[in-house]
Amino acid sequence: MSSSATPANVAVEVNRTAHAFSRAQLEGVMTKRFFYNQAFEIYGGVAGLYDYGPMGAALQANIISAWRNHFILEEEMLELDTTIMTPYDVLKTSGHVDKFADWMCKDTKTGEIFRADHLLEGVLEARLKGDEEARAAEGDATTQKQEVPAEKGDDKKVRKKKVKAQAVKLDPTVKAEYENILAQIDNYSGPELGAFMKKYDVRAPESGNEVGEPVQFNLMFETQIGPTGGLKGYLRPETAQGHFVNFSRLLEFNSGRVPFASAHIGKSFRNEISPRAGLLRVREFTMAEIEHFVDPLEKEHTRFDEVANVELAFLPKDVQQAGQTTLVTKTIGEAVSSGMVDNQTLGYFLARINLFLLKIGIEPSRLRFRQHMANEMAHYASDCWDAEIHTSYGWIECVGCADRSAYDLTVHAKKTKKDLVVQKVLKEPKVYEKWVANIDRKSLGPKFKKDAKAVEEAITALEQEQLESLSSALKNGPTKVPGTEYEISSDLVTVELKSIRETVREFTPNVIEPSFGLGRIFYALLEHSFWAREKDAGQGVLSLNPLVAPIKVLVVPISANASLAPLVKDISARLRKEGIASRVDDSSATIGRRYARNDELGTPFALTLDFASLQNGTMTLRERDTTGQLIGSIEDVVKTIKGLCEGSISWQDAEGTLKKYSGEQAL
Amino acid sequence: MSSSATPANVAVEVNRTAHAFSRAQLEGVMTKRFFYNQAFEIYGGVAGLYDYGPMGAALQANIISAWRNHFILEEEMLELDTTIMTPYDVLKTSGHVDKFADWMCKDTKTGEIFRADHLLEGVLEARLKGDEEARAAEGDATTQKQEVPAEKGDDKKVRKKKVKAQAVKLDPTVKAEYENILAQIDNYSGPELGAFMKKYDVRAPESGNEVGEPVQFNLMFETQIGPTGGLKGYLRPETAQGHFVNFSRLLEFNSGRVPFASAHIGKSFRNEISPRAGLLRVREFTMAEIEHFVDPLEKEHTRFDEVANVELAFLPKDVQQAGQTTLVTKTIGEAVSSGMVDNQTLGYFLARINLFLLKIGIEPSRLRFRQHMANEMAHYASDCWDAEIHTSYGWIECVGCADRSAYDLTVHAKKTKKDLVVQKVLKEPKVYEKWVANIDRKSLGPKFKKDAKAVEEAITALEQEQLESLSSALKNGPTKVPGTEYEISSDLVTVELKSIRETVREFTPNVIEPSFGLGRIFYALLEHSFWAREKDAGQGVLSLNPLVAPIKVLVVPISANASLAPLVKDISARLRKEGIASRVDDSSATIGRRYARNDELGTPFALTLDFASLQNGTMTLRERDTTGQLIGSIEDVVKTIKGLCEGSISWQDAEGTLKKYSGEQAL
Repeated sequence: MSSSATPANVAVEVNRTAHAFSRAQLEGVMTKRFFYNQAFEIYGGVAGLYDYGPMGAALQANIISAWRNHFILEEEMLELDTTIMTPYDVLKTSGHVDKFADWMCKDTKTGEIFRADHLLEGVLEARLKGDEEARAAEGDATTQKQEVPAEKGDDKKVRKKKVKAQAVKLDPTVKAEYENILAQIDNYSGPELGAFMKKYDVRAPESGNEVGEPVQFNLMFETQIGPTGGLKGYLRPETAQGHFVNFSRLLEFNSGRVPFASAHIGKSFRNEISPRAGLLRVREFTMAEIEHFVDPLEKEHTRFDEVANVELAFLPKDVQQAGQTTLVTKTIGEAVSSGMVDNQTLGYFLARINLFLLKIGIEPSRLRFRQHMANEMAHYASDCWDAEIHTSYGWIECVGCADRSAYDLTVHAKKTKKDLVVQKVLKEPKVYEKWVANIDRKSLGPKFKKDAKAVEEAITALEQEQLESLSSALKNGPTKVPGTEYEISSDLVTVELKSIRETVREFTPNVIEPSFGLGRIFYALLEHSFWAREKDAGQGVLSLNPLVAPIKVLVVPISANASLAPLVKDISARLRKEGIASRVDDSSATIGRRYARNDELGTPFALTLDFASLQNGTMTLRERDTTGQLIGSIEDVVKTIKGLCEGSISWQDAEGTLKKYSGEQAL
Repeated sequence: MSSSATPANVAVEVNRTAHAFSRAQLEGVMTKRFFYNQAFEIYGGVAGLYDYGPMGAALQANIISAWRNHFILEEEMLELDTTIMTPYDVLKTSGHVDKFADWMCKDTKTGEIFRADHLLEGVLEARLKGDEEARAAEGDATTQKQEVPAEKGDDKKVRKKKVKAQAVKLDPTVKAEYENILAQIDNYSGPELGAFMKKYDVRAPESGNEVGEPVQFNLMFETQIGPTGGLKGYLRPETAQGHFVNFSRLLEFNSGRVPFASAHIGKSFRNEISPRAGLLRVREFTMAEIEHFVDPLEKEHTRFDEVANVELAFLPKDVQQAGQTTLVTKTIGEAVSSGMVDNQTLGYFLARINLFLLKIGIEPSRLRFRQHMANEMAHYASDCWDAEIHTSYGWIECVGCADRSAYDLTVHAKKTKKDLVVQKVLKEPKVYEKWVANIDRKSLGPKFKKDAKAVEEAITALEQEQLESLSSALKNGPTKVPGTEYEISSDLVTVELKSIRETVREFTPNVIEPSFGLGRIFYALLEHSFWAREKDAGQGVLSLNPLVAPIKVLVVPISANASLAPLVKDISARLRKEGIASRVDDSSATIGRRYARNDELGTPFALTLDFASLQNGTMTLRERDTTGQLIGSIEDVVKTIKGLCEGSISWQDAEGTLKKYSGEQAL
């Protein structure tokens, strides 16, 4: 058979790190094999917009399908499909019209626009790099001994405008100031960023011109709904509001009970100031969001025990505020019981997120959970952790998991005057005594006239102790409403101690929100899966697992001989019947070339049909990473491949049931 | 058991038409059970925007899944996921900036806006109705004998503004004119609509004011991409352009060969002037579009034979132009061979569309294929048929199937100067002779100076006969370039007969486009599935088939007794393992009430667990439409239900393998 196929009877060592990861090589494969590509390429492309081709769309669909199984089906979540178009009022209420913005500043002469934090960060990092280079050039032993991270920006999220470093030494005080700023760059407001830019003379990198004061740029795309121009709309920046405005319907669907979760997979939009970094910072993206509605007094989770022993790598806020990035590894059980993670429900989802990301193929060592610092946290959140995945761009936020408290439901209820609350029957009625004022409105009105409402409000606002003293006072004759000059008497108002029996508690649920940026996860997974064969740096392999691989099985007839065609058709039909996505490559390329092309597509298995298949009814099965091959009857091989694709057996198991195959036999 | 359950040993007659269909009842159920609802309800709602709740989202997902299997997987289409955000240039080129518009007119005093065709149609229909009423009131025997359609507007698409009829007799000539206009309402331009409105004094229905001249309103939502305001964008009005701009990448993925098809399921947007009619005319909707790229000289389809005998109900353009709506029923084979449907590929998709709609549950008698009339056809189409489904709103366009010819690829190629073509190796090289002009540019330039380019272009534009005469003329000395005053001689230009050998044919593929409005299909399916029990008009049943039903199986423990809980859990787990969506209803409602609630949700089957299940290991199986019940071992019932959900067995088959169950046994 193919000269590139390694005979399986030789122990195969797969060395995935023989060649350093090359982002350019990965991107080349992704474009050429049409996983994804910049949108409107033939029109010159539009920054921040990407199209998924057949392979990318299939990979994305498989990730979504795995997500749906892992979250929605497993927990019986209520799936929604709400509109992208959102009217002004809703996003004004949610806070997005006022606060969903980035700070930008302009080159004062060319008008070029920068995201303020990215500009400051890029310039300071370049200066620190220049300082290192200058010291290195001087042979400064102290500096040379310092460990320089292998890859700059490793601990940062994507936010850099490439700025060229110049080898200039910095004053040690200034250097320390720069480092301190960079460690907390997400923590600064626009005016603070502007002050730093003035203080350190940060200029536009290419022109060298000064930049203006940072101003806010709202990141929502705005449009007009209908022909009259009277209704302003936005493209949603998240799916979350679609859950909240439907809360009452969801609650009714769930028979009035919490906890329950809604889930929504769909597109959201951010009009990024200056999108870079490929799929990691885009203007249109697919999100998967869960809103888990929970009683604020009962944030325990009934299934927490199932995940309590899952170990996560944490980067808590106190570590970051100390300028450090050391990870704390512990079980989610310990993290919650120590108070580091606020509550069980939040912890449950952190663990479930972790399990999902590992299941689809994210490298465990390149996944961490970073807690938001106080100023960084979204305006609605009470605690928030990001699942960050390490890529060649550094650590990237891929999933946010926030406790949004009761913020959203409260503001929407207030604005719309609709009750967005849960009523819970108390296990035992709550019985207590309470001072209650009875106001005789018919007499109060004529007496106080236009002040009557104010008098009533003043009485209603009284505390229990005030009511108690008022009760005594009124028994002794007319008296003033405490805190006012209004004189009342017992013919207008009486105060008495009443016995109250409450059977229902009414509350606004809190919301725990795991929010997935599927495009970022998609890209990180590609980086974690891509490597080059040890003997050929140009030969890429995409080690996607069968759960997410766009095509599970390549069907390869060894030659174009027509006698093989019916068998190829038969095998394809069998695989389709088993629900296994397959693809036939009957091109004239050598079989090694055909294997190699499909290694790039991430196809985990190949079935090779040759003349022995016709004569003996056998078929060979190739595994992508090891290139090992097995042989067996068509029946057995199909059965094995089904198990491999479903994940019920491993390649090692397959080696136990099928015979090893050495390429020479087929020659 | 429940008193509402009909004992299965009595023959069950299901009468689905005992009560007339009630749209209000269906809509009530849809809102209450949260299939869908107007979006932003708590904010008063936004016209033309709808959210899908858990049941609606699941039904939609199941329709999409069936669509993906029926089209994408069956035909190995290349699935795409392209951006909604589309820059101006792309939609300018495609023609949407100039032509994707409706005509609207304004009430000259109140400013109220109407869609011009809807207004004219509504007013004329109301007058015709008024005429009928007036004649009926007069006892005009001739009129009374005329058959009045049971439902007005039966033959129209959704486009009516409700206008109240007044009983006023019309002149017979005017009546005929109205009827003629209505039969061709889709055929008129804005100025024509305006002329009719003047001629017949059509006014705003509520105010009675005059309306202004119709003006065009572009139906795309417009926005700005990025912070500089320099890049205008639109939300796509269709997914199609995303396929065309990626054509080269798709062609390369398909190894340079046609035919192939791309497919895309996603949201598109239309800023409707005045959306009404619920899910049928919305501003944001999910589409599924296929672009099948084909050699214009080979529009045969290799799988046409598989569908040639499929019968369709056609409404061809000549019938409509004659003011008729009589359907022509014939096989797609006959329709293509008679030339009524333009080509095999178009015909193949019409048949496949028909099969898909029937598969998900559309009533065959309420489905027709209507051909577009000449003026109605989109600017790009060379032939177009709509699959129209009959609903309480009349016949609704749910799928368009157009032959877009080479229009889109041609205009994008021209605009971007990129070759969007296919090269096909000719089976036999084409050898022929051709007159070719050889221009000596080095001499031409100095001689003609600024005119040199014009001279060259004039020569290049010459036809073969002109070149042949020029060849002879030049042999006799200097001569003028035909059609110009430029004199040339043989030292500047020679013309000779050359032998040409072409091995490759280059062409722009044609595109056949089946385009599905999934929301309209979703709604039509609900109408076709909804009915009320003969004995209780208030008890709705949604007869969705298991392929699309949101929940396939209801699991009902007969009482809240804790001893049943483990079995309920076990059965749920088994169903989940088999991939069957189920739901437990362990509420305290009577079992009949629980069945009834799930009949409204369209749940086809119910499993009932009682104490016999614990003692004898039996379980009953209920079918929604007949309410018939069977009983068997848990093993057998699970096996049966799997077959029923997969469609491999029918309820009649199940009745053959399990025992009939009469409710009394469990009492």
